[in-house]
Amino acid sequence: MSKAKPISRFPVPEVKHLPEDMRERILQVQEKAGFVPNVFLVLAHRPDEFRAFFAYHDALLLREASGLTKGEKEMIIVATSGANQCLYCVVAHGAVLRIYEKAPLLADQIATNYLKADITPRQKAMLGFAMKVCQDSGAVTEADFDALRAHGFTDEDAWDIAGITALFGLSNRMANVTSMRPNDEFYLMGRVPRA
Amino acid sequence: MSKAKPISRFPVPEVKHLPEDMRERILQVQEKAGFVPNVFLVLAHRPDEFRAFFAYHDALLLREASGLTKGEKEMIIVATSGANQCLYCVVAHGAVLRIYEKAPLLADQIATNYLKADITPRQKAMLGFAMKVCQDSGAVTEADFDALRAHGFTDEDAWDIAGITALFGLSNRMANVTSMRPNDEFYLMGRVPRA
Amino acid sequence: MSKAKPISRFPVPEVKHLPEDMRERILQVQEKAGFVPNVFLVLAHRPDEFRAFFAYHDALLLREASGLTKGEKEMIIVATSGANQCLYCVVAHGAVLRIYEKAPLLADQIATNYLKADITPRQKAMLGFAMKVCQDSGAVTEADFDALRAHGFTDEDAWDIAGITALFGLSNRMANVTSMRPNDEFYLMGRVPRA
Amino acid sequence: MSKAKPISRFPVPEVKHLPEDMRERILQVQEKAGFVPNVFLVLAHRPDEFRAFFAYHDALLLREASGLTKGEKEMIIVATSGANQCLYCVVAHGAVLRIYEKAPLLADQIATNYLKADITPRQKAMLGFAMKVCQDSGAVTEADFDALRAHGFTDEDAWDIAGITALFGLSNRMANVTSMRPNDEFYLMGRVPRA
Amino acid sequence: MSKAKPISRFPVPEVKHLPEDMRERILQVQEKAGFVPNVFLVLAHRPDEFRAFFAYHDALLLREASGLTKGEKEMIIVATSGANQCLYCVVAHGAVLRIYEKAPLLADQIATNYLKADITPRQKAMLGFAMKVCQDSGAVTEADFDALRAHGFTDEDAWDIAGITALFGLSNRMANVTSMRPNDEFYLMGRVPRA
Amino acid sequence: MSKAKPISRFPVPEVKHLPEDMRERILQVQEKAGFVPNVFLVLAHRPDEFRAFFAYHDALLLREASGLTKGEKEMIIVATSGANQCLYCVVAHGAVLRIYEKAPLLADQIATNYLKADITPRQKAMLGFAMKVCQDSGAVTEADFDALRAHGFTDEDAWDIAGITALFGLSNRMANVTSMRPNDEFYLMGRVPRA
Repeated sequence: MSKAKPISRFPVPEVKHLPEDMRERILQVQEKAGFVPNVFLVLAHRPDEFRAFFAYHDALLLREASGLTKGEKEMIIVATSGANQCLYCVVAHGAVLRIYEKAPLLADQIATNYLKADITPRQKAMLGFAMKVCQDSGAVTEADFDALRAHGFTDEDAWDIAGITALFGLSNRMANVTSMRPNDEFYLMGRVPRA
Repeated sequence: MSKAKPISRFPVPEVKHLPEDMRERILQVQEKAGFVPNVFLVLAHRPDEFRAFFAYHDALLLREASGLTKGEKEMIIVATSGANQCLYCVVAHGAVLRIYEKAPLLADQIATNYLKADITPRQKAMLGFAMKVCQDSGAVTEADFDALRAHGFTDEDAWDIAGITALFGLSNRMANVTSMRPNDEFYLMGRVPRA
Repeated sequence: MSKAKPISRFPVPEVKHLPEDMRERILQVQEKAGFVPNVFLVLAHRPDEFRAFFAYHDALLLREASGLTKGEKEMIIVATSGANQCLYCVVAHGAVLRIYEKAPLLADQIATNYLKADITPRQKAMLGFAMKVCQDSGAVTEADFDALRAHGFTDEDAWDIAGITALFGLSNRMANVTSMRPNDEFYLMGRVPRA
Repeated sequence: MSKAKPISRFPVPEVKHLPEDMRERILQVQEKAGFVPNVFLVLAHRPDEFRAFFAYHDALLLREASGLTKGEKEMIIVATSGANQCLYCVVAHGAVLRIYEKAPLLADQIATNYLKADITPRQKAMLGFAMKVCQDSGAVTEADFDALRAHGFTDEDAWDIAGITALFGLSNRMANVTSMRPNDEFYLMGRVPRA
Repeated sequence: MSKAKPISRFPVPEVKHLPEDMRERILQVQEKAGFVPNVFLVLAHRPDEFRAFFAYHDALLLREASGLTKGEKEMIIVATSGANQCLYCVVAHGAVLRIYEKAPLLADQIATNYLKADITPRQKAMLGFAMKVCQDSGAVTEADFDALRAHGFTDEDAWDIAGITALFGLSNRMANVTSMRPNDEFYLMGRVPRA
Repeated sequence: MSKAKPISRFPVPEVKHLPEDMRERILQVQEKAGFVPNVFLVLAHRPDEFRAFFAYHDALLLREASGLTKGEKEMIIVATSGANQCLYCVVAHGAVLRIYEKAPLLADQIATNYLKADITPRQKAMLGFAMKVCQDSGAVTEADFDALRAHGFTDEDAWDIAGITALFGLSNRMANVTSMRPNDEFYLMGRVPRA
């Protein structure tokens, strides 16, 4: 039914007309996910910004040395995207979070109110820091780093939390302005246990 | 896994010890839904408040003369509960909304940002009024009624929108204070087309 | 002068045309107060909602086991109604508060800034919790219950505070949307010592 | 009962020890009002600031050429003092407003929600401008002056509205920081028709 | 270029037509500064308010007994004027702050985010109190005075901080409403070391 | 004096130890500016994020087809960085803005209150859109694009405005969390006319 719905209020290029490197990345993700997440198509309208965005994305989310798990990084994205009212990121990264954490309920909990989510006190402290960076970064002080440290987070972890929050703050704004539409597939991913 | 999670930070009575009328209502809903929604068990801690809450609920949601559809009423609940960060109501009424509207994507859209949802301009005006009643009711003026009227809503419809927003504002506050936990079943309801 | 002012922007039924149970309740309160508070007339436009509202009201305000005094319950109503800019509730419950507490100054103090009111530190803690439930219930955590407990409040007291705040949050929204007008009589009640 | 309550958290001088000019002003107002409003005693702790404050007060409130009535000026004070949660100014200027306008209900209405007060659309526009100056003066633009002009206000009237709002914003902050206590007498003034 | 720009949206009197006392004050400041700061000309439109404003200004800023340095008083003005988005006061008092503190960078730091400024923890506590008085004075409690006292501030210092914040809150509102334009000269003052 | 002040609360690498491509970029900018802006050193702590950030930066700011001038892009950065209380970006991009526009006063105006700045109505509309993307992107609707279009902005211009706002929102958050210190040199740049 929603097939015909536009995925962006801006022009969306056809994959076949994209530069080789972009096409390759898109085909890779398509192979893995079974479909092309709309963020790739919507941002492809501006190839250089597309490349920079995904380079930043990879730098933060694929960084091997991080003290955060892959699931924790997605928690940050879902919580702050909820605060920024970004439909695309809540839905798409909610799906990824459910899959990474094998926790079908977690994304809805964190998007709505992380204080009520099935996560550890340490993870709540992590999201508390992320929400402050998201909503009032000018007021961050050493006391906020101390609160993280009390849960075992290092300064490098704090940078990761801030970086992910900041990058998806960018992404949330672009998704909101472009009216980026989440693929229908995301809504159900990770909700039903694999047989 | 979440079976053992408490559904309220307050004592939860056993159904068999509840007064007859409450037990009956609970068994009815259990029969229909296949499980007992936790709101019945959590609020049952205070029988008189339980009875009043569901009387109010029925008065507004079962009112036959209403110009709002059953689905539209659930849209109001989901949008304002999202604004109030109420996990229980977003998840439970999100399920009901998906079922009523036969629209598996709609609840996540409306809970996150109703301006990006697959709804009509009329329904967006309805939710705009609901959000103002939810967040700044003291500033409601005749201009807000005019905006509704431009979409064909009557004054009685406005009362319905306001009443549902107000009742679920009450419900959101009680759910937040009791840490009312949504039943796991709700998260998936209405997302998978019935075979 | 204000006799002719409408008490609601919605139709107001005549008492004589109301169902027996509603008429009886209204006559009772009239006998006691000397006049019919407008909330009864304005809400009577929707009999089932009227009945549910007053059932909820009685469940919370007449509950015998409560650890809160009658005056303290009215303090909660006045403080949160002030925050919600609800003229009807500030004026009508301000009158009741003055009478219950035999304190002619208290309602104006609490409606304007409860931190400056002639109340105990315990009562300020109670109103602090009520204001958080009123304005940011999603952020309520165990620390808020601890702060109440430090002043001797039990969990049941916390439920009472939250319930009253939530019910009058509903009432504030309906009063604001209907432009419910307080009876002139309320403004002076409890201000002048009975001879 | 509240006789013994401190009227300031700062030292309060005795009138007899004040400089001649201040004593005279205080005795004048005492003669007129029948008591000394506490603002005179609290601010007298700093004589030079006292003199400047009342000079500013007189310049704005006694200005003969003003297009605002005495009552309208008090409306501005009461509305913005309510927004600033200033108990002293709401109570003391509420009394003055009731007396000037011979309107026993008006102060409570305006302090709680001026949109519901028994005032003219022109006066609501005046208070709308005052509230914007009070709460978000950096966003005032020519459109706000146009809105005033549509109700017959001149630029000089706009200056008056802004000046009164600004001066009582100062007063509200000092009253809040000193915990300035309104005299008990103010609460009842202007509420009972003179025989 | 900006010579021709209006310095107020209200009429600006010519100095030669002003009353003697005002003219004298203006000539004094002109002699000292090398130009007439526009605040004198803009406020001169209302002589009595002009006199009261500068009397208040002198009472607070020239008060000899103050525990705050001249530079600290300007820090308060710059920080709170930034919060109030007042261009005139940020630019003019930024210049004065740079000169008093012989610190060319300080004004920009404090106007943007005082938590990142090159000031002492004691001065940050002072500005924390000022910002609370500026933005939420109704919530000031004894705990805020305790926080000042922990840094050696007396109650009289607290009054000074509050008074300066309150007076420049007034000034910010008048400057915003009049679109008071800072003199071009201020922007560069105190930025370049005197040879 | 501030030479010894740390430029980041995180480790700062030495330029000579950086990878070739980063060193080259840094030396280029040093040659052009006469010093190395601290953002390069602070972000160099994470080379991959550094590369992605500057790639994004160049994609947006060096984009040739843009309908915005170089100066207008800096206006967006300065206005939104002010709203985000980011000292580094206000000071550093304020300098660039002054130079590009040859307007020594403009940066302070826009950082404090763009509504009072010496810019065109078209540029105010541009900044109005940027501020909405910065502070409430979830509420952006077609009406906001219409408002831009009324001033001749195309959809591609809107993307540019949003993209710059979003990227510097990221930058603001990283600068706030790292306590990134602006180079002293920036404060004075563009303020003094070149001889």
